[in-house]
Amino acid sequence: MITLYHLSDSRSSRIIWLLEELKVPYDLKQYNRVGGRSPAEFYNLSPLGKSPVLVDDGRSYIESGAVIEHLVRKYGRNFKPSEQDIPHLEKYDFWMHYAEGSLMMLVVGLFVNSKAVEMSPFLSRFLVRKVTDTINDHYYMKEIFLNLDHVDDYLATSRYFAGDRFTAADVQMSYPLLCLQSSVLNTRPYPNIRRWLKDIGSRPAFVVASGKSNDRNFQVHKETKHYKEEEEPDMSSFSISA
Amino acid sequence: MITLYHLSDSRSSRIIWLLEELKVPYDLKQYNRVGGRSPAEFYNLSPLGKSPVLVDDGRSYIESGAVIEHLVRKYGRNFKPSEQDIPHLEKYDFWMHYAEGSLMMLVVGLFVNSKAVEMSPFLSRFLVRKVTDTINDHYYMKEIFLNLDHVDDYLATSRYFAGDRFTAADVQMSYPLLCLQSSVLNTRPYPNIRRWLKDIGSRPAFVVASGKSNDRNFQVHKETKHYKEEEEPDMSSFSISA
Repeated sequence: MITLYHLSDSRSSRIIWLLEELKVPYDLKQYNRVGGRSPAEFYNLSPLGKSPVLVDDGRSYIESGAVIEHLVRKYGRNFKPSEQDIPHLEKYDFWMHYAEGSLMMLVVGLFVNSKAVEMSPFLSRFLVRKVTDTINDHYYMKEIFLNLDHVDDYLATSRYFAGDRFTAADVQMSYPLLCLQSSVLNTRPYPNIRRWLKDIGSRPAFVVASGKSNDRNFQVHKETKHYKEEEEPDMSSFSISA
Repeated sequence: MITLYHLSDSRSSRIIWLLEELKVPYDLKQYNRVGGRSPAEFYNLSPLGKSPVLVDDGRSYIESGAVIEHLVRKYGRNFKPSEQDIPHLEKYDFWMHYAEGSLMMLVVGLFVNSKAVEMSPFLSRFLVRKVTDTINDHYYMKEIFLNLDHVDDYLATSRYFAGDRFTAADVQMSYPLLCLQSSVLNTRPYPNIRRWLKDIGSRPAFVVASGKSNDRNFQVHKETKHYKEEEEPDMSSFSISA
C-alpha cells in the first residue's frame, strides 16, 4: 500500500501526477502550510520536513528524483527508457538530475529572496528589495534565462524530455517549469516550452493531479501575450517546502 | 576517448576522482575562472557554461549526476548497486539526487549571498551584509544545519552512502560536504561525516584527483577542534561554476 504525504503548493504535486499516470492505488494525506512553511507534523514524517514523503510497504521515500525512480522501478518500467536504449536513457538521466540540481535551485533562490522582501519590516523593505533585486539581476535571473533558453532549444528538437515518448523525466521537469509560469516564463515567448506545457496539461492524469494537489502552480496557464521583459518576477504564488 | 573539460574550483573535481577510481584513460583540459566565473570559452563547450563537461566518443555530457551515471554504466557497474540489490540501489538513488537537489542548492545560496557582499561597493557593504546575513540565518544556515544532522545521523549507521561498499554516490556527495569543510562543518563535531571524509581522503584515486583538480575545496582537512558556533560562515574559499 502506498501513502503519499503531500504538502500544499509543493514538489509532491508531481508525485500525485505520476501515481495517476501509473494507475496504482494510493492514499493521499494532505497537509497545509503554516506561515508558508511545513507544519510541525511533517518533521515527524521526514527529518528534513520536506514534501514529498512517500511510504510504500512500510518503507519511506523522500527527494523527488528518488521517489520517482522507486515508483518507476516497481510500478511502471515503461515510464523510463530501457537499459538497452542508451541514447534515450542518457537524456532521461540528464533531465532527472537537471530539474532539481540546476533549474529548481535557481527558482528556490529567487523565491527565498522574494520571501525576504515580503517578511521584512515595512521601514526596511525598500532596502531589502534593493539588495535582493541586485542579487537576482546579477545571478538568479541571468541564470534562469540561460537555462530556459536551453530547455526551449531542446524541446524544439524533442517532443518530450527523453525523446518522442512521455517518461517520468517529464514529470520531474514539470515542477520548476510550472512554478515559473506566472513569472519569468511569461516575459518571453518560449514557444517550445509552451507547446510541451500544453501537451502535458492535456493528459488525463495531469488534470486529475491538478485537481487533487491543492497547488496554485500545478496547472497549465492559457498562453498570455503580455510579456513584461523589464519587470521583476512576481513570485507571490510560489511556496517551497521547507 | 574521454575528455574532461574542468574548471578550477568546480564540481567537476569529483569527476576527476571518479575517472581515477574507474582507471580509464582520459584527457584533462584545465580552465581557470575569470573574476570567479566561467571563462567565455566554456560557453562554447556547454550552453550553460557550467563544469563538468565530459566528452566521450564525440558525445557531450553535462550535469554531475548524469555524467556519473554515464561513466558508471559504461565503465564501472561495480560502482553502483546492482538492479537485484534494491535496498542499496534505493539508497544510491536517494543520495545521488539529494547531493545536488537538496544539499548543494543550499551551499550555492549561501555562496551567492557571500559573493554579493564581497562585490558590493564599500559604502553599501555593511547594508548588503546585514540583509544577506538575515536571509542566511532565517533560511540557508537553518536548512544546512538540519541537512548536515541528517547526513551525520545516516553515516552513523552506514559506512558509505549506499551501504558498506564505496559507490559513485560517495563521489556525488563529496562535493557539497568538501565545500562546507572550511565553514559550517567546522562549527559542530559531526563525527560521522568526519570519519567518512577521512575514509574517502585516504583513497589513492582521491589523492590523485585532489592533486590534479586545482580546487581549494577538493581535499580533506585535518580535524579541527575550534568550533565557532556563533560566527558566520566564511565562504571565501568557495566558487561556483556559473
